[in-house]
Amino acid sequence: MRNIKLTLQYDGTAYHGFQRQDPRPTIQAELEKALVTITGEPVRLVGAGRTDAGVHALGQVVSFKTTARIPTERWPAALNSLLPPDIVVLTAEEVALDFHARKSARRKTYRYVVANAPLPSAFLRNYAYLVRERLDLEAMQTAARFFLGRHDFAAFRATGSSVKTSERTIYRLELRRQPFEVLPWFWLAEAANPKLDQEGQDLQPTLLHFIVEADGFLYNMVRIIVGTLLEVGRGRFQPGDVGAILLSKDRARAGPTVPARGLFLERVEY
Amino acid sequence: MRNIKLTLQYDGTAYHGFQRQDPRPTIQAELEKALVTITGEPVRLVGAGRTDAGVHALGQVVSFKTTARIPTERWPAALNSLLPPDIVVLTAEEVALDFHARKSARRKTYRYVVANAPLPSAFLRNYAYLVRERLDLEAMQTAARFFLGRHDFAAFRATGSSVKTSERTIYRLELRRQPFEVLPWFWLAEAANPKLDQEGQDLQPTLLHFIVEADGFLYNMVRIIVGTLLEVGRGRFQPGDVGAILLSKDRARAGPTVPARGLFLERVEY
Repeated sequence: MRNIKLTLQYDGTAYHGFQRQDPRPTIQAELEKALVTITGEPVRLVGAGRTDAGVHALGQVVSFKTTARIPTERWPAALNSLLPPDIVVLTAEEVALDFHARKSARRKTYRYVVANAPLPSAFLRNYAYLVRERLDLEAMQTAARFFLGRHDFAAFRATGSSVKTSERTIYRLELRRQPFEVLPWFWLAEAANPKLDQEGQDLQPTLLHFIVEADGFLYNMVRIIVGTLLEVGRGRFQPGDVGAILLSKDRARAGPTVPARGLFLERVEY
Repeated sequence: MRNIKLTLQYDGTAYHGFQRQDPRPTIQAELEKALVTITGEPVRLVGAGRTDAGVHALGQVVSFKTTARIPTERWPAALNSLLPPDIVVLTAEEVALDFHARKSARRKTYRYVVANAPLPSAFLRNYAYLVRERLDLEAMQTAARFFLGRHDFAAFRATGSSVKTSERTIYRLELRRQPFEVLPWFWLAEAANPKLDQEGQDLQPTLLHFIVEADGFLYNMVRIIVGTLLEVGRGRFQPGDVGAILLSKDRARAGPTVPARGLFLERVEY
């Protein structure tokens, strides 16, 4: 028996999330179907993070046990030949039998992408959340610092979720503005869009990346943190309000949950 | 009667091309449906380029005549509220009655994107053509120069196409390698993909952009030019072969037609 660890990326747009939910299409069901075909045995896999419907992954990790003797380096190509093109296995490695993709994870990094622009993008519609208002980035940066360290994040989880503790440690919460010059070519390029400024829409299109690294995440935690920081950016919350919201442990005081489509599970560390 | 010129972007993945082909979904049909709803009158529009199924646009231009008195600056938002999210109107302006989006066009720019990487991308699957082989960029740059200027491009058009002349002028054929540092975040990021090198796949993932500006294009011209330059990059053609292929006017001697999904109509000039 061998224990195999896969790193994969997927476009979550067409799926009802990672976790199996038959007969709906899920990442887990697609992977398990491909693994059964390759190994000829039933395979149950574990994912590091149960991404929701519409959430994407750049570096999701899954593990499964198998008796198949396929050389480790062959797994990615073998799986990719069977998987739909919106799921791609990047790497495979054999790990100790006690390795568990979820339980062994020490840190995870999520990225949330906001398209801050006057117009939607035909190409980023499934990969970024459109915010049309001008945002105060400096205030958002200041507010972001309140999240760092160990806190009870009860105010930043979906109501009704039940886990033993809502204490988590955030190691990093970075807010990056992607310079206009290095935006993807299919973004609202100046070449394609010379008239934006003339219409009184003086908002320079940009992408904002929120990068959050923590020892674990509560349900919807990243999406509520980003929703709260955007309220700071709009001036509806002051940066200092974030500290008070954390202490309140009251979900109703935090900002809204932003849509799934801007969220990427970027990396899992063991 | 007013003549309105729109600039728009679209993700062509879900469409059977620009031109109406009822009952199949097309860009033209979606636009005309939205225009009828807004104006209450039948509208026939003209597009600058008849992009094929799967081809995208960053700056397609269309024009149509209408008696509707909607202020010019209101057209984009009005149309975007009715259009599917993979079609976005960027700008609108009123133009002279004799303006015709196709006949008045003086220059068009197309962009073709190649993902040169050992693995496919879940996110770029519809927006770039995957080439796994190492490519000789210098040879491709040298070969690209043969296309510049006025030539008979008969060897670089789909067989069976019938236009009066196959002479066209290429003003620019640029080949740009997008530096790894500024690739879109959802590309095969190092963070998500630390093991690529260890598997003997020493091809550094990159995106290659072919930018072609001309006074007009024959059917499949960009896709055959790119297919030919890729053969040069693979070493199957020498750069100088391109000159001979042009002179031969023989489609069979040029390279293959690369897939539609990497192609973007970037800009139309009048």
